[in-house]
Amino acid sequence: MNQTIALLKSHRSIRKFTEQAVSDDLVAEIVACGQAAATSSNVQATTVIRVRDPETRASLAACAGGQPYVADAPVLLMYCADLSRSAVACDIAGGEFHPGMTEHFMIATIDVALAAQNAVVAAESLGLGICYIGGIRNKPQEAADLLKLPEQVYPVFGLCLGFPDQNPEVKPRLPLSAILHEEHYCADQVVSGIGDYDPVVREYYKTRTGGTKDSNWSQEMSSLVGKESRPHMKEFLSMRGFQMK
Amino acid sequence: MNQTIALLKSHRSIRKFTEQAVSDDLVAEIVACGQAAATSSNVQATTVIRVRDPETRASLAACAGGQPYVADAPVLLMYCADLSRSAVACDIAGGEFHPGMTEHFMIATIDVALAAQNAVVAAESLGLGICYIGGIRNKPQEAADLLKLPEQVYPVFGLCLGFPDQNPEVKPRLPLSAILHEEHYCADQVVSGIGDYDPVVREYYKTRTGGTKDSNWSQEMSSLVGKESRPHMKEFLSMRGFQMK
Repeated sequence: MNQTIALLKSHRSIRKFTEQAVSDDLVAEIVACGQAAATSSNVQATTVIRVRDPETRASLAACAGGQPYVADAPVLLMYCADLSRSAVACDIAGGEFHPGMTEHFMIATIDVALAAQNAVVAAESLGLGICYIGGIRNKPQEAADLLKLPEQVYPVFGLCLGFPDQNPEVKPRLPLSAILHEEHYCADQVVSGIGDYDPVVREYYKTRTGGTKDSNWSQEMSSLVGKESRPHMKEFLSMRGFQMK
Repeated sequence: MNQTIALLKSHRSIRKFTEQAVSDDLVAEIVACGQAAATSSNVQATTVIRVRDPETRASLAACAGGQPYVADAPVLLMYCADLSRSAVACDIAGGEFHPGMTEHFMIATIDVALAAQNAVVAAESLGLGICYIGGIRNKPQEAADLLKLPEQVYPVFGLCLGFPDQNPEVKPRLPLSAILHEEHYCADQVVSGIGDYDPVVREYYKTRTGGTKDSNWSQEMSSLVGKESRPHMKEFLSMRGFQMK
């Protein structure tokens, strides 16, 4: 196991940071590492907005459901999927932008995730801790307004960065056999993998919460996919110009 | 610049591989590194299908538009967004799966991209080269059939892996100023960034193709977003159970 692999395997979200500042140069380096990730047809659909203003950050924290680190982490980066830049380029080249395609939405969203994950690896290699803030999609229109996003841009998630002031354990994952299949999808591996994983998750929560949380993966998934999730998303994306044609 | 950052910044797609085999253990390690990435609400929506069968690989290569490395690379991994596993878990817990939400689709797709990018970093740290195969979405239903995917699972992209038999230069990216904004979106930075980048891209293509490709980024974007892209995608996703509600 080399150093990079050890780093990848040691990831856990950090939600409590020391007051040590992260220099602008370091942030630039981290975002640039994101740029180095693969990008579909070189579209480079990622825009990162660094928010420093305490009021804006408090408002974004409220959008995300009140997580205090969104307001307080040394660095908050808002990762946005941006087809506006490509539309501008298309205009420069005399072409006519074709908005609203599902595939373009997917390309842009995947691009952002690849860039962000590279940035995360870079940050962690520098001793920083990170936390993705998907909760920003609770109130995405408010976030888009705060960030003054033009059409064809939407906030995918936030990313909090800073030097860790906690050391949580790495969360156990599904057994590899539930994830990695040979030749074709194998439902049996999935069922048996869940069976093996459920007690592991229950034990993890028990240990982590001193016994107050008693739940397994199946129960967590039942909470997650057993109900509507952000039902505003379709309308929000459509308003931003992502009509899923 | 530490070793991991140097690695991230040296990424370029590899499309020609030596015949050196990649061991099953190495593939398992790479996929496991993907599992270590952040995942929204621990949903772990990534399923990886390793395809070895030459006929299936040839068919997948045809789906992707005939790229020979899809058939020939030492390893082909198909990265799929999988909410079926969560649906099974939900059923185990006695819940009722709520299919078709846009947000669930996004969570699953982003999850796959985060896991894949971690796997890519792991692979490159081991001296392997990689190439994402988004082209699989040219004929996603054929790919889904070949992989025997159940409902609530779709192929996001393929990933070719192997030891590099070429050493292409790193592709230049947009200037950081076009990507990284402060406090809010800054359209001026975008326009001036494109202006700086267009001649760089033209020079890159000229050098790389010995003068036969004469195009800049704006022109490339005009080709990409100036027309419909995979117009079958909406219907395909809907048929898989991702109705974008």
